[in-house]
Amino acid sequence: MSGAGNILADLAPDPAAERFEVLLSRPGVRVERIVSCGQASPPGFWYDQPQGEWVLLLRGAAGLQLEDEPAPRRLEPGDYLWIEPHRRHRVAWTQAGAATLWLAIHVEAAAPPI
Amino acid sequence: MSGAGNILADLAPDPAAERFEVLLSRPGVRVERIVSCGQASPPGFWYDQPQGEWVLLLRGAAGLQLEDEPAPRRLEPGDYLWIEPHRRHRVAWTQAGAATLWLAIHVEAAAPPI
Repeated sequence: MSGAGNILADLAPDPAAERFEVLLSRPGVRVERIVSCGQASPPGFWYDQPQGEWVLLLRGAAGLQLEDEPAPRRLEPGDYLWIEPHRRHRVAWTQAGAATLWLAIHVEAAAPPI
Repeated sequence: MSGAGNILADLAPDPAAERFEVLLSRPGVRVERIVSCGQASPPGFWYDQPQGEWVLLLRGAAGLQLEDEPAPRRLEPGDYLWIEPHRRHRVAWTQAGAATLWLAIHVEAAAPPI
């Protein structure tokens, strides 16, 4: 994590694995760059995260399934979505043969008042 | 703030004023979309913010001056930068006649331990 860079650099897709890079990590907030190439969440797997996640698709295309919706949302470049903590979701598909670039902002739920 | 949308929508540049839109607001974190068209910070004005700011330029071009650097950094699409709280900075210029699109993540400094 260097503090500065270009999010479009080094987009060579890797069909073998998604690539994750932390661009910013501060108390309560983590910004991540993800490069996918045809990957999807394993069958039957759901993310169930204590943090909220704001996701922005910048290149490529993906299908994002929210458990409480009947079908995956198709995400195109520029599309963003806020996923509340514990809203179960999975990546149904990402475009094959090309890089799909995501920006994800993970936000800790605020501590409850005491 | 609807929770979902497309950050590339409605990029018609407005030479009269920058356009700000809050895409996400949670305790400690605010995500903003900014569309500039030739605007710059007023001469002699410096941002001096208690929050940190992670900024990503998505369209257009801009010059970002950090007070502790000798010349503005030129930002092109994909370039990002973390600006620590109270690191003084200003927008030296943005591209004229076209939209310059920014994503800004404002991050509250963690409360100091008591």
